[in-house]
Amino acid sequence: MSRQSATWLDGAPCTALPLPDRGLDFGDGLFETLLVHRGVPAHVDLHIARLQQGLKALAINDCRAAVRQQLRQVCGEIASEWRWAALRLSVLRSPGPRGYAPAQGLAPRILITATQLDRDCAEMSVPVALSLADIRLSAQPALARIKHLNRLEQVVAATQAQAEQADEMLLLDQAGFLVSVIAGNLFLLYKGELLTPLLDNCGVAGTRRRLVIERWAPALGLKVREARLTLADVDSAEEVFYSNSLYTVRPVSRFGGRCWRDHSVCSAIFQRYRDEFP
Amino acid sequence: MSRQSATWLDGAPCTALPLPDRGLDFGDGLFETLLVHRGVPAHVDLHIARLQQGLKALAINDCRAAVRQQLRQVCGEIASEWRWAALRLSVLRSPGPRGYAPAQGLAPRILITATQLDRDCAEMSVPVALSLADIRLSAQPALARIKHLNRLEQVVAATQAQAEQADEMLLLDQAGFLVSVIAGNLFLLYKGELLTPLLDNCGVAGTRRRLVIERWAPALGLKVREARLTLADVDSAEEVFYSNSLYTVRPVSRFGGRCWRDHSVCSAIFQRYRDEFP
Repeated sequence: MSRQSATWLDGAPCTALPLPDRGLDFGDGLFETLLVHRGVPAHVDLHIARLQQGLKALAINDCRAAVRQQLRQVCGEIASEWRWAALRLSVLRSPGPRGYAPAQGLAPRILITATQLDRDCAEMSVPVALSLADIRLSAQPALARIKHLNRLEQVVAATQAQAEQADEMLLLDQAGFLVSVIAGNLFLLYKGELLTPLLDNCGVAGTRRRLVIERWAPALGLKVREARLTLADVDSAEEVFYSNSLYTVRPVSRFGGRCWRDHSVCSAIFQRYRDEFP
Repeated sequence: MSRQSATWLDGAPCTALPLPDRGLDFGDGLFETLLVHRGVPAHVDLHIARLQQGLKALAINDCRAAVRQQLRQVCGEIASEWRWAALRLSVLRSPGPRGYAPAQGLAPRILITATQLDRDCAEMSVPVALSLADIRLSAQPALARIKHLNRLEQVVAATQAQAEQADEMLLLDQAGFLVSVIAGNLFLLYKGELLTPLLDNCGVAGTRRRLVIERWAPALGLKVREARLTLADVDSAEEVFYSNSLYTVRPVSRFGGRCWRDHSVCSAIFQRYRDEFP
């Protein structure tokens, strides 16, 4: 396997998706992005746990056993080839008759694409500047926190980021509260406490967000509090970083007129991740 | 072509979609559902006009000429086979590098699926009962009115409809105002005027909704007013119907405790559609 990327559908190598497909027609499905180091996927259980939340929310058949089996297979195939890889795992509700109503009781399709990563994910990323996205995320409690395939808001924000040559964008909800960045969860250090946006109405509950809240920050003696936060809270933050599955945590150097040079909490959290990595 | 359904990608018959695809990964694209009678698609210009609104909103390359050409081709191929057909036209942003940011300047993919319809679309549908969807639509002005591929809210509502054996569902927004049904736009007759929900925050601006507002209702001497409407307005309506491209207009017989037996405005509008049909 010398390609930079390869795809499997239900365990078989594939280059095309048989049609029709409800993932394509309606975004009727879920996805996960996993970091893989020499064939070992990081924090599979947390990804599977979030996937399960999504399967329940969308009433898609439980396919966790098949997902685990196919992840093992794919990771085995790329283990000797690539040092670092990103896996995109998509679970697509199985095709049914024309129209929005799904067929019942069918196993979903499992699509996995592995892509070689150039970056050494054992090294923390250099600090990045954030811009503010014009589009504001819509409030949908029924789909908040899960990682579903309806991602046009993120695409619109990423298009703006590209035009402005911004590395990442802050996203607000319709009411003006902070939600996240385009591809990650936000953390603000303020008076010895980490603050992160509540995700009751929108946003994705990241696997690394969960690790920061439940494991990595407590190990450093830091409390994390989920709260309604505004741009003013960013301005008064002593340190800003975001988390996602490929960067783990990534320090923020600048937003608007504000600069941050101290990234010690972000670095300490990254070190926890490093210490745990096999 | 004896199959009940056939698909073309960029004008070539196809059974599978080459991967990766941004329509699949993020719902990054648009769609239209066209009614075709003996190879003649209905109201193509209105579909293309809405598609263009979507292309602009998502900054996808203008592909209207190719869409028209491929619609002509597909309609030609099914003309002699099927009396009535539904075309699902999807415009998918062309693949780019991994991640949310799109590649610039590439022509989108055009996917058309034609499906034979059993129903005689020259006959008005029998009146249907509505239920109320539990899920409420999220407010997203940047994506309102266009027919994009992020349709999980509709899928969730249709799953509920299926469980309750409901024909169609009323959808409210997060603030409790009426938006539409799952697959159509809503009209209420009240004191000699037609009322239809404002679509500034969510919902799809249907082609048949536009025809009712701009042509069919005025031809009957009826004014149509877009307004913020509630369930109380449904209750006090003298007649209720919804519009979509396959039913044109469909009378509503029941919602909650309320029944409607008079469908004369809906019938008169359907007759206008019949009179115009080639």
